[in-house]
Amino acid sequence: MSSLIDVFHSYSGREGDKYKLNKLELKNLLKEELSELLSASKDPMVVEKIMNDLDENQDGQVDFQEFVVLVAALTVACNEFFIVCEESCKQEHPGPKKN
Amino acid sequence: MSSLIDVFHSYSGREGDKYKLNKLELKNLLKEELSELLSASKDPMVVEKIMNDLDENQDGQVDFQEFVVLVAALTVACNEFFIVCEESCKQEHPGPKKN
Repeated sequence: MSSLIDVFHSYSGREGDKYKLNKLELKNLLKEELSELLSASKDPMVVEKIMNDLDENQDGQVDFQEFVVLVAALTVACNEFFIVCEESCKQEHPGPKKN
Repeated sequence: MSSLIDVFHSYSGREGDKYKLNKLELKNLLKEELSELLSASKDPMVVEKIMNDLDENQDGQVDFQEFVVLVAALTVACNEFFIVCEESCKQEHPGPKKN
């Protein structure tokens, strides 16, 4: 939890409201901390779209609560991917039969 | 994100459905990973109450998505506490006046 808070503030504190991410700060955070998220998308407007999705109160910035929604969603997606991998691994490499 | 997934699975995999926390697994996770959360509450039924709050689909267990809601809420609360501390610190120890 503390690392999530530290990461957020290390970007939000750079300019403007130090407790919120403006578009540039969000872009830098995504590029440096979640690069796979950006590289997985071919959409040049991906940052704007993520910004709009997260910015629930439409103040043009992303506060910590809005940011945690993104991290939670990504974590749940990673967990589902982890489970699918584990299950398919088991099918490919069934363990020793139990007599 | 991965540490959150690892922590969850290290408890959920102990018995029963390995992708869900039953009450005992949730209690152990809270006791060992979030001990302050339990010790801060004098309520002996705190685990049951957390379980009921998290168990949205009422299947008597907590899946990963329900667990992430708890972690996100705690993280937001920690962040707000961090901001209050930082602001009150600034008032007690104002930096050098800018001429």
